[in-house]
Amino acid sequence: MPDRPSLRPISEEMEDLLGVRHPVLDHGFVELVDYMGTDHCIVQAARTSYAKGTRSHRDDRGLIRYLMRKRHTSPFEQAEIKLLVKLPIFVARQWVRTRTANVNERSARYSILDREFYVPAPEVMCAQSTTNKQGREEPISADMAGTMTRLMREQAVDAFDLYALLLNDDGSGESVGDVPQLTRELARTVLPLSTYTTWVWKIDLHNLLHFLSLRFDSHAQHEIRVYAEVISKMVAAWCPLVWEAFEDYRLHARTFSRHELAVLRELLAGVPDVDATLDTMIAARVSAGELSAREARELRDALRPEVSDG
Amino acid sequence: MPDRPSLRPISEEMEDLLGVRHPVLDHGFVELVDYMGTDHCIVQAARTSYAKGTRSHRDDRGLIRYLMRKRHTSPFEQAEIKLLVKLPIFVARQWVRTRTANVNERSARYSILDREFYVPAPEVMCAQSTTNKQGREEPISADMAGTMTRLMREQAVDAFDLYALLLNDDGSGESVGDVPQLTRELARTVLPLSTYTTWVWKIDLHNLLHFLSLRFDSHAQHEIRVYAEVISKMVAAWCPLVWEAFEDYRLHARTFSRHELAVLRELLAGVPDVDATLDTMIAARVSAGELSAREARELRDALRPEVSDG
Amino acid sequence: MPDRPSLRPISEEMEDLLGVRHPVLDHGFVELVDYMGTDHCIVQAARTSYAKGTRSHRDDRGLIRYLMRKRHTSPFEQAEIKLLVKLPIFVARQWVRTRTANVNERSARYSILDREFYVPAPEVMCAQSTTNKQGREEPISADMAGTMTRLMREQAVDAFDLYALLLNDDGSGESVGDVPQLTRELARTVLPLSTYTTWVWKIDLHNLLHFLSLRFDSHAQHEIRVYAEVISKMVAAWCPLVWEAFEDYRLHARTFSRHELAVLRELLAGVPDVDATLDTMIAARVSAGELSAREARELRDALRPEVSDG
Amino acid sequence: MPDRPSLRPISEEMEDLLGVRHPVLDHGFVELVDYMGTDHCIVQAARTSYAKGTRSHRDDRGLIRYLMRKRHTSPFEQAEIKLLVKLPIFVARQWVRTRTANVNERSARYSILDREFYVPAPEVMCAQSTTNKQGREEPISADMAGTMTRLMREQAVDAFDLYALLLNDDGSGESVGDVPQLTRELARTVLPLSTYTTWVWKIDLHNLLHFLSLRFDSHAQHEIRVYAEVISKMVAAWCPLVWEAFEDYRLHARTFSRHELAVLRELLAGVPDVDATLDTMIAARVSAGELSAREARELRDALRPEVSDG
Repeated sequence: MPDRPSLRPISEEMEDLLGVRHPVLDHGFVELVDYMGTDHCIVQAARTSYAKGTRSHRDDRGLIRYLMRKRHTSPFEQAEIKLLVKLPIFVARQWVRTRTANVNERSARYSILDREFYVPAPEVMCAQSTTNKQGREEPISADMAGTMTRLMREQAVDAFDLYALLLNDDGSGESVGDVPQLTRELARTVLPLSTYTTWVWKIDLHNLLHFLSLRFDSHAQHEIRVYAEVISKMVAAWCPLVWEAFEDYRLHARTFSRHELAVLRELLAGVPDVDATLDTMIAARVSAGELSAREARELRDALRPEVSDG
Repeated sequence: MPDRPSLRPISEEMEDLLGVRHPVLDHGFVELVDYMGTDHCIVQAARTSYAKGTRSHRDDRGLIRYLMRKRHTSPFEQAEIKLLVKLPIFVARQWVRTRTANVNERSARYSILDREFYVPAPEVMCAQSTTNKQGREEPISADMAGTMTRLMREQAVDAFDLYALLLNDDGSGESVGDVPQLTRELARTVLPLSTYTTWVWKIDLHNLLHFLSLRFDSHAQHEIRVYAEVISKMVAAWCPLVWEAFEDYRLHARTFSRHELAVLRELLAGVPDVDATLDTMIAARVSAGELSAREARELRDALRPEVSDG
Repeated sequence: MPDRPSLRPISEEMEDLLGVRHPVLDHGFVELVDYMGTDHCIVQAARTSYAKGTRSHRDDRGLIRYLMRKRHTSPFEQAEIKLLVKLPIFVARQWVRTRTANVNERSARYSILDREFYVPAPEVMCAQSTTNKQGREEPISADMAGTMTRLMREQAVDAFDLYALLLNDDGSGESVGDVPQLTRELARTVLPLSTYTTWVWKIDLHNLLHFLSLRFDSHAQHEIRVYAEVISKMVAAWCPLVWEAFEDYRLHARTFSRHELAVLRELLAGVPDVDATLDTMIAARVSAGELSAREARELRDALRPEVSDG
Repeated sequence: MPDRPSLRPISEEMEDLLGVRHPVLDHGFVELVDYMGTDHCIVQAARTSYAKGTRSHRDDRGLIRYLMRKRHTSPFEQAEIKLLVKLPIFVARQWVRTRTANVNERSARYSILDREFYVPAPEVMCAQSTTNKQGREEPISADMAGTMTRLMREQAVDAFDLYALLLNDDGSGESVGDVPQLTRELARTVLPLSTYTTWVWKIDLHNLLHFLSLRFDSHAQHEIRVYAEVISKMVAAWCPLVWEAFEDYRLHARTFSRHELAVLRELLAGVPDVDATLDTMIAARVSAGELSAREARELRDALRPEVSDG
């Protein structure tokens, strides 16, 4: 529609994604509605802090990695994304635990919900884990899974049939026969948690990354993780430097507690010629661009504190 | 358990409410877990702003009314309340639109939900309003309502039966027979939106009042309004001055738009001897403590702008 | 720079404002960096709630006015704006009381602040109000104001001289002579509250309107109100329908308390032939598009409750 | 005043701190005004999630450590603290970057500020670091520091003299002579950033810990770190289990990036008999209560991924 060039910062990759529906689960989707900012805008916001007085000029990638590593989160709040999402209600309930976002959801008080509900594909049907209260364990046999999903589907169909009966609305808003139309806000209470809902969801990149660190995780429920996967790919296209840093410093990083660090250092004490070995290994990573000079220094200090003090 | 007197500010009325369960709907409740602050603490927080330099000393009631009227909201954030609430999931979904609160909810991924669901009492069953998309209109006949609630109950019972079948957990965690136990996070998707959940909800008084202004309202859905009513009574006992001000300046107040004000002023132009009449009426309210001297002045200015300019 | 047309929703008026610096006070400015959304996007977000089930189709203006009037605020959160602002520190301190925003501020720990400070123009120099603790009263004579601003300027110049002395940085980072360079984070503590700072500020439209309702107000300090004025003009260009509704239902509206309403109704009881008069007045406003049919109904109910009940 | 025992959860240690002023810097302080919750309340909030369905019962310490380690932050939001703080304005400006808190600050528009400003003690006067743009390096000689602080003090005294002159208020509100009283909101603009302000600050424990992780850190400016230190001691007294976990899993923990982990694993590959050594070390920590059984398992997996896969 608008063919006038915008002066706003633009991500070519995101322009191609605007309005495209990415299917998720059996009836859901994620669609990019709008976005604000790019890798470079985040860098510019961060540079507002420096202005005069800092001579050295880190490049965009270096600065973004530094911000991510040191958890200087405010520049990431300067980018924003808006998505249209269709998702089952039980997923929506997990989703909104991320409160720092703007949501406009389809109302089941005003409108009549579509007859759409989630039934798991047989291959994602798993038994309750006995060790991890939260999770899934081994898959359920195809046969048994088939039986279970059939029952789930029938239950949902029954619920939607009752919903239609209570609403008694032929689609035109007119009732059929002499029977009353139960108010929508009560009729919907019979629908299952698998019912699909739709919302517009707007969030800044910092809070989105926090969302992804929770939901794009092996412990997240499969049904929300698949949404997080689609959004992750979007972020990787939108702000590739941020995404790389997020993978390196958050997704594939690991925090060692005080006592775990003690184990680590004890262990390293037994490594023959540890200082030289460490120096060689680190130097290789620095020249590959995987560690900055500063990270190299800090890593050596973390692993060999007695050396750095000496 | 603690019999040591606390030095914290205490509300005698709230102490009596601690741990008391107020039943709501058919299986829900609201229970006061803890609170922080009183009317007087709010006044003290507001007075932090003044310190030296203001000579006149408004009393607590006057100051609280002033803060409420002028929407100086930050002092009301200095009081906090914590509730344990049991509520149907469709109510919980409306409830969390108030995002500035802390929530810990019973997890249906970790735990097995109780067989408890909401079925409306026949007398609250209403037909869909045809003029107001959001609301209820006339009640449904007892007969018809009875039929509908019976169907709703049966549907919920069926859903919980299927839930139990899929979980296949006799309560001890052991499965019955050779059949797998479907992971809880999937089994729960068959449950209806009327299923009860439980959470601890903590919120500051300013945000609680905002919640109440939305939910303790004739347009709110009946099933959330009954919770708001119980909480309103709590607030009235906890901070009576705040509650009185909230009723006067928010609940029973009305905002007139620019154009409505124009109508109002036009109308008043036709009142014989309007200035004297207005003065008399206002004076009566001032001596009854219903209007402060400042409000009296501002009201006269609002209704008779040309006079005040002249 | 980008000449590729964006598929994002675009506001022609905002495109023209991108990158333009609007001077404010003696050294400050407001500059539009980016924006997301338009009037129409807000309408679309609101319509997500309805989908099927609502037949009547209110036009964009009508819906936006309805949302504003009923304080359905979430659709306004779906638009976002990013500004670069230069402002005195005492203004910045008031500004950040609006917490729901993203800020990246120039750091006086990292960087050296420019020698720029605010000195009031003589014509805005006013005496302390004796009735309103917060405000200004009558202007100070040009002579006296001139003396005062001269003293203020000299004081600020002295402070910046001391700052430079403590920093002992000739601009290249090198110190002059053998004297140490006091750390920047301590040197800045001598600077006055009138010192300018700069930040990138990003906020959604709902929270921006709240900011404007506080700061674009006759009781706001002049020095922040002038910023609010510039931003208000931007919003009026960006989302004209939202701005019109904001003026009608917020800026130029007035809330009457419970007791004020009682006065109002008492007063109207004395208007001869009030119902017919009111109907005529309201009808005129409805045909002028100033009141919707629904507002007309609600206004009559508010002013003549006994009539509507009868 | 209240000698009635409260039924609210009480921390004996916090009761003793209520109303006690802890001096900070030359004129500042931190004073506990109120608190809500204890270690045990956090545990109870977390247990809301489980209810039926989890048989094993972790003890309070184990559960709190688990929550901290896995960053399940919401239970920590269920405790709240309210402080009265007096602090220099440049510290206050850093402080409010933590936005999720409630603040009521002394107003310099309403009231006249006390003649109190911060002057660094000579021993904290340091030169600007040349490697770390943000920090201090070596101390400045006592002599030079003495000169500098004398200049800073004189500058502040001059500023407060001008402030008094502009206000022209003898303390009674009356002006001296025929000279006007400049409005307070303008007079204050001449005051230095070292001027003290006072506020009531209320925050939940999760956000407080985040604040402490930023401000109780070697890179934080000394003048805010000393406040963080006082508050840290309060938290340690209030919720000792939370504090221990915070120290172990946040303050004294370290996150290794993806590439740092690669270095680590490469290094361990060279440790002779690494698996047995690691097992012995870990076992010792487990029996000392420093690592849970689950942490032991996860640590082994993190350091020896190929073993755990094989």
